[in-house]
Amino acid sequence: MCGPHVPDFSSASIANMSIPTALTPPRRVLMGPGPSDVDDAVLAAMARPTLGHLDPRFLEVMDEIGSMLRSVFRTENQLTMPMSGTGSAGMETCMVNLLEPGDRVLVGVNGVFGTRMAEVARRCGAEVTEVKGEWGRAFEAEALRAGAEHDRYDLVAVVHAETSTGVLQPIPAVRELADELGALLLIDCVTSLAGHAVEIDGWGVDAAYSGTQKCLSCPPGLAPVTFSERAVEKMKARKTPVQSWYLDLSLIQGYWGEERSYHHTAPINMLYGLHEALRLVLEEGLEARFDRHRRHSKMLCEGLEALGLAARVPEAERLAPLTTIAIPDGVDDAAVRGHLLEHFGLEIGGGLGPMKGNTWRVGLMGAGSTERNVKLCLAALDDAMGRG
Amino acid sequence: MCGPHVPDFSSASIANMSIPTALTPPRRVLMGPGPSDVDDAVLAAMARPTLGHLDPRFLEVMDEIGSMLRSVFRTENQLTMPMSGTGSAGMETCMVNLLEPGDRVLVGVNGVFGTRMAEVARRCGAEVTEVKGEWGRAFEAEALRAGAEHDRYDLVAVVHAETSTGVLQPIPAVRELADELGALLLIDCVTSLAGHAVEIDGWGVDAAYSGTQKCLSCPPGLAPVTFSERAVEKMKARKTPVQSWYLDLSLIQGYWGEERSYHHTAPINMLYGLHEALRLVLEEGLEARFDRHRRHSKMLCEGLEALGLAARVPEAERLAPLTTIAIPDGVDDAAVRGHLLEHFGLEIGGGLGPMKGNTWRVGLMGAGSTERNVKLCLAALDDAMGRG
Repeated sequence: MCGPHVPDFSSASIANMSIPTALTPPRRVLMGPGPSDVDDAVLAAMARPTLGHLDPRFLEVMDEIGSMLRSVFRTENQLTMPMSGTGSAGMETCMVNLLEPGDRVLVGVNGVFGTRMAEVARRCGAEVTEVKGEWGRAFEAEALRAGAEHDRYDLVAVVHAETSTGVLQPIPAVRELADELGALLLIDCVTSLAGHAVEIDGWGVDAAYSGTQKCLSCPPGLAPVTFSERAVEKMKARKTPVQSWYLDLSLIQGYWGEERSYHHTAPINMLYGLHEALRLVLEEGLEARFDRHRRHSKMLCEGLEALGLAARVPEAERLAPLTTIAIPDGVDDAAVRGHLLEHFGLEIGGGLGPMKGNTWRVGLMGAGSTERNVKLCLAALDDAMGRG
Repeated sequence: MCGPHVPDFSSASIANMSIPTALTPPRRVLMGPGPSDVDDAVLAAMARPTLGHLDPRFLEVMDEIGSMLRSVFRTENQLTMPMSGTGSAGMETCMVNLLEPGDRVLVGVNGVFGTRMAEVARRCGAEVTEVKGEWGRAFEAEALRAGAEHDRYDLVAVVHAETSTGVLQPIPAVRELADELGALLLIDCVTSLAGHAVEIDGWGVDAAYSGTQKCLSCPPGLAPVTFSERAVEKMKARKTPVQSWYLDLSLIQGYWGEERSYHHTAPINMLYGLHEALRLVLEEGLEARFDRHRRHSKMLCEGLEALGLAARVPEAERLAPLTTIAIPDGVDDAAVRGHLLEHFGLEIGGGLGPMKGNTWRVGLMGAGSTERNVKLCLAALDDAMGRG
């Protein structure tokens, strides 16, 4: 009865390649826009033995992750969990689940990630109103209101922390606007979660997504999301199926909820890393962590000013975890970043879109928000620009 | 000029939770349908320092992964890479990129994953013909042909290795059918890649997806995919945008190709794990690896027979990496699996769909396909059924 089928179809001739050697990645100092430096305890957690995705011990891990995420998002939302993809998968999760064809969406676009939100919403068949704002500035709620083309919207979407520009968007006034328009409120907090106050319940946010590789200081690969009761009701009232099966929360809830029914095989070891990263965040305490991010951002900005470099975002609108810097005329963007990487093992980020070539992005995120990193970055920039 | 914005919106009162202790997952023997046991070298690779996703050293890692994946898929397809999600994201990647609304798809449905392919294709707006087959048996190409409702199709999709039933589907005759129908051919090789011969170029497969947590013996979290030139041409000729931004290959190629333009932040440490897992596969050699899988499957089936247990799939259609077993009348599925986990640290899988409660699924995949595991499983099953 035994012995499996042996395929008899003869193999095509594919040239054999030489096998690469095992990886020995250098230890960088990651001060770009993410990924940020990862605590050794998080890396060690990822190397723990893989459990099955329905193992009783792993189900406990999932419950603990859910509880810790609720603490970090400052919410009691039941539907709070990490999606099995990177931050952009989190954005798509929110859009595909909340929107149906013809729904109206108002999006604030003042950077790459607002642009992306509008694009993803359009791919869901939504009718999208893009309100354009200046890159490097936050929106006044009045400007968003003025950009609305209808009295009623289904969703208002803004970026809380624009990773492309370094801008922090105040949320409460946007919530008021969403209320006027009868809309749910969605925020991108990829670069703010665990680095800046994110008050999902306090601000009345209906949906939010983040990523693990910024202020949570976990490697990239997971996208924490959270949804209010009102958001869940909108999903329950859908007339059309969610266009993405992989990101369909009505199915995924069966696994993360009490039923524990199989949907897809969860990325076990990534979730170990997130578990440890969340533990470290809560052990430090959110307020202490936000304060640390503010303190080192201030120290960096003062040092930059002393070097004759200018932050691109006005002080009151500036993100603590990510500082954008205007590259002085005559300074070669790529040459400076190459110098930093080669001589200091230091990664900082270049600009995106209209900021490409004229802006640096310096992250002080999570485990990487330290006085030592501030001083290293300032010394390295000074050296790279030939002023040392 | 410095100091970031401090939000003045007072925090909502969210009850503080107690912080969980650090994870100490037990070391199981993973003989379910995946995840499978992971080599320590792969776990160690995942704990290496995180690099930035545009770091020159990381770009080399990506190139090496692409080359190794081509070797394992036995293809020269340029468009070959791991998607940033689990195997189901790989399935969705193939469907959303290859299909446009109104396209005709013929899907062979004889298990959970064929069912899922049909569902995902429908969510892309395709007109889907499901050809139903017996769960636990392969399709004859003639049966698929007889189920076709049209002379022409855009895509024929079958599961090469049905993880829910343990069936291996021969591909060459399905390729002939696809040619008759003028269709591209898509295969699911989640459970076969690196455990059974998968000849993408030799068989003329146009698109295939897999997962890392089966015979590649890497933790779950990535989905290797590959596309032929004909598949790429169909994508280039699209009249509508891909409905998923996250999985849009026209954008992702910009990062994995020569341009290296930012799309999303790649899951760096997961990719380290895959790099090491692929290295181990190629060091062993594909033929030797397939032979090892066949040998241990045969040993398991012979042992099961001696215990009075019957494999559910006829020998000629049986998967080597995954054996399905009929649970004898009067034996309590959950009690046996609980006994195995508690007393032997051994995980085997239960059945899905119509096989729930009446079928066990035993994986001998990748690093887990060993004589020791065969003997452990047989002894543990004997013990659990009170025959020891």
